[in-house]
Amino acid sequence: MELHITLLGTAASVPTASRGTSATLIACGRQRWLVDCGEGTQRQLLRSGVGLTEIDLILLTHLHGDHYLGLPGLLKTYGLRGREHPLRIIGPTGLERLFATLNPIIGRLPFRVDLDERLPTRGEPVWEGEEGRIVPFATRHSVPSMGYAVIEDDRPGVFDVAAATGLGVTPGPEFGVLQRGGEVTTPAGRIVRPDEVLGATRMGRRVLLTGDTEPCGTTLDLADGASVLIHEATFLDADRERARETRHSTAREAAVLAREADVDLLVITHLSSRCLPRDIRDEARAIFPRTVVGRDFDRIEVPFPERGEPVVTSLRRRPEVEAPADARGTVPAFDL
Amino acid sequence: MELHITLLGTAASVPTASRGTSATLIACGRQRWLVDCGEGTQRQLLRSGVGLTEIDLILLTHLHGDHYLGLPGLLKTYGLRGREHPLRIIGPTGLERLFATLNPIIGRLPFRVDLDERLPTRGEPVWEGEEGRIVPFATRHSVPSMGYAVIEDDRPGVFDVAAATGLGVTPGPEFGVLQRGGEVTTPAGRIVRPDEVLGATRMGRRVLLTGDTEPCGTTLDLADGASVLIHEATFLDADRERARETRHSTAREAAVLAREADVDLLVITHLSSRCLPRDIRDEARAIFPRTVVGRDFDRIEVPFPERGEPVVTSLRRRPEVEAPADARGTVPAFDL
Repeated sequence: MELHITLLGTAASVPTASRGTSATLIACGRQRWLVDCGEGTQRQLLRSGVGLTEIDLILLTHLHGDHYLGLPGLLKTYGLRGREHPLRIIGPTGLERLFATLNPIIGRLPFRVDLDERLPTRGEPVWEGEEGRIVPFATRHSVPSMGYAVIEDDRPGVFDVAAATGLGVTPGPEFGVLQRGGEVTTPAGRIVRPDEVLGATRMGRRVLLTGDTEPCGTTLDLADGASVLIHEATFLDADRERARETRHSTAREAAVLAREADVDLLVITHLSSRCLPRDIRDEARAIFPRTVVGRDFDRIEVPFPERGEPVVTSLRRRPEVEAPADARGTVPAFDL
Repeated sequence: MELHITLLGTAASVPTASRGTSATLIACGRQRWLVDCGEGTQRQLLRSGVGLTEIDLILLTHLHGDHYLGLPGLLKTYGLRGREHPLRIIGPTGLERLFATLNPIIGRLPFRVDLDERLPTRGEPVWEGEEGRIVPFATRHSVPSMGYAVIEDDRPGVFDVAAATGLGVTPGPEFGVLQRGGEVTTPAGRIVRPDEVLGATRMGRRVLLTGDTEPCGTTLDLADGASVLIHEATFLDADRERARETRHSTAREAAVLAREADVDLLVITHLSSRCLPRDIRDEARAIFPRTVVGRDFDRIEVPFPERGEPVVTSLRRRPEVEAPADARGTVPAFDL
């Protein structure tokens, strides 16, 4: 199952020239989920080259403007394009009240919007598929807030063809029975149990997105052994007091948590324009080397663990210019 | 007086990878005015290199989302930056009701927002300065709508130093009296009238922005001899029926109006992603050659007419990338 994450907005509170406000796209098999939807998210989708994909679920971490102001525009655009597929939006306490405010702005839509306001009680998935689920978890911010964990089911161990044929199993459908956990009887009358031909169970992949939060135990619990932890770090440790006041994290704190959870990769996001990304990176890597500071249009591929570590590439597009950026002189020169 | 215009969003209804929704910045002397404020305008200001300048006035042409959804984010950002200077927002019928809806989203601000809801009766300026004024004019769209004309006062003719000294005026303060339209008496007792030493009155510069509209007479009246007419053209003439239904203009219609008004420059904006900019341009130029199709980050300088025609240059920034856009390999490579 394909699993990758595209960072669409990595700035805290206000955008910068190179960073939009919070938004992250998760592609999980055929599902497309958006975590938060800051102003300009629809355009970030277009600029990333992903395009205005039909999102199945929107997962809001909390209801601060820099995490939801892109919703009216995105929903209106879906409407103009004639979307019919219902859209489910999950968020913490306040979601329904927020939409009571936004509805007159959004206007009539040709598709259904299903609001799912949640108390982030760990363990109740907000989505379940054949191979995994999305579990919200309580975080600690200045307003009701939650993170989301994408948890893939554990997969059976690797099937040992040589062992199975050695035990006399006939190659064919019976291999499938064993792979799915059933027993088979060989032509010689031997009963073969799956544990005789399957390796150890393979832990499913796990991706966590914290949204805005102080470091907290719920994150740590769920992050244990995760493939990717996308954690905010709005401050450097020198501003730890300010982080406490505003209920955010420092780069050091995110890295300490990532180290304790022993995640494969820590991706830091929600950067304040007051911090240099380089300083955030250096502070985190001093604690936890497997850290990247996210940039808009970064894509994080999360392969099955046996196929390697998560890989970060950039979808950053070539400049949007057809003509060079020089002065274009007087009127009828090159305006296209 | 400096007068230039920066296009911050030139797309119709929905953004594209290279075009934001409607927003135009006007710099007039020290004043900074924003005409419309589509989603992402605050970021377009940053991306243009202009920066998050302190806008004095926001002029809304009509209350469709693609023209105002950037307001909550921009106002909140000004608030976070501690803006104290009041902000005046002018718009047609519905402005106060819109803000009644937006206020809970915008929240408390440390500066005053003065709403000025107007019936676009031509002739009542919404702003007056020492050298000019802003006059709204009624347009024809599917909702209450108006355009804005920035009208510079006419300037006195060029002062003819040789003529004045020839008539015996002593160089010095009396030159100023004549330039301001007063009479002076020479040491020899000759009364010199200003029309003896001043050339013909010079017509002030004039910039019109229509917002979304069908072509209409009010635009034509005010556009007469304008320096720059920024007119929408959401459609090509082949889609004229659709333009009528939705109360928009075609490229041909904008060009016909520009030709009748004999403007110095027609800038077409509000491009639908369904039309090629090249086709829009060709259709308009066949009627009115002094046409450019606006692009985001185009800047239109409007010099005094005696110093030349309006000039379009691009502020389009170099790519925002520090590192090349190639795959960046595994974790600790170059993530900054």
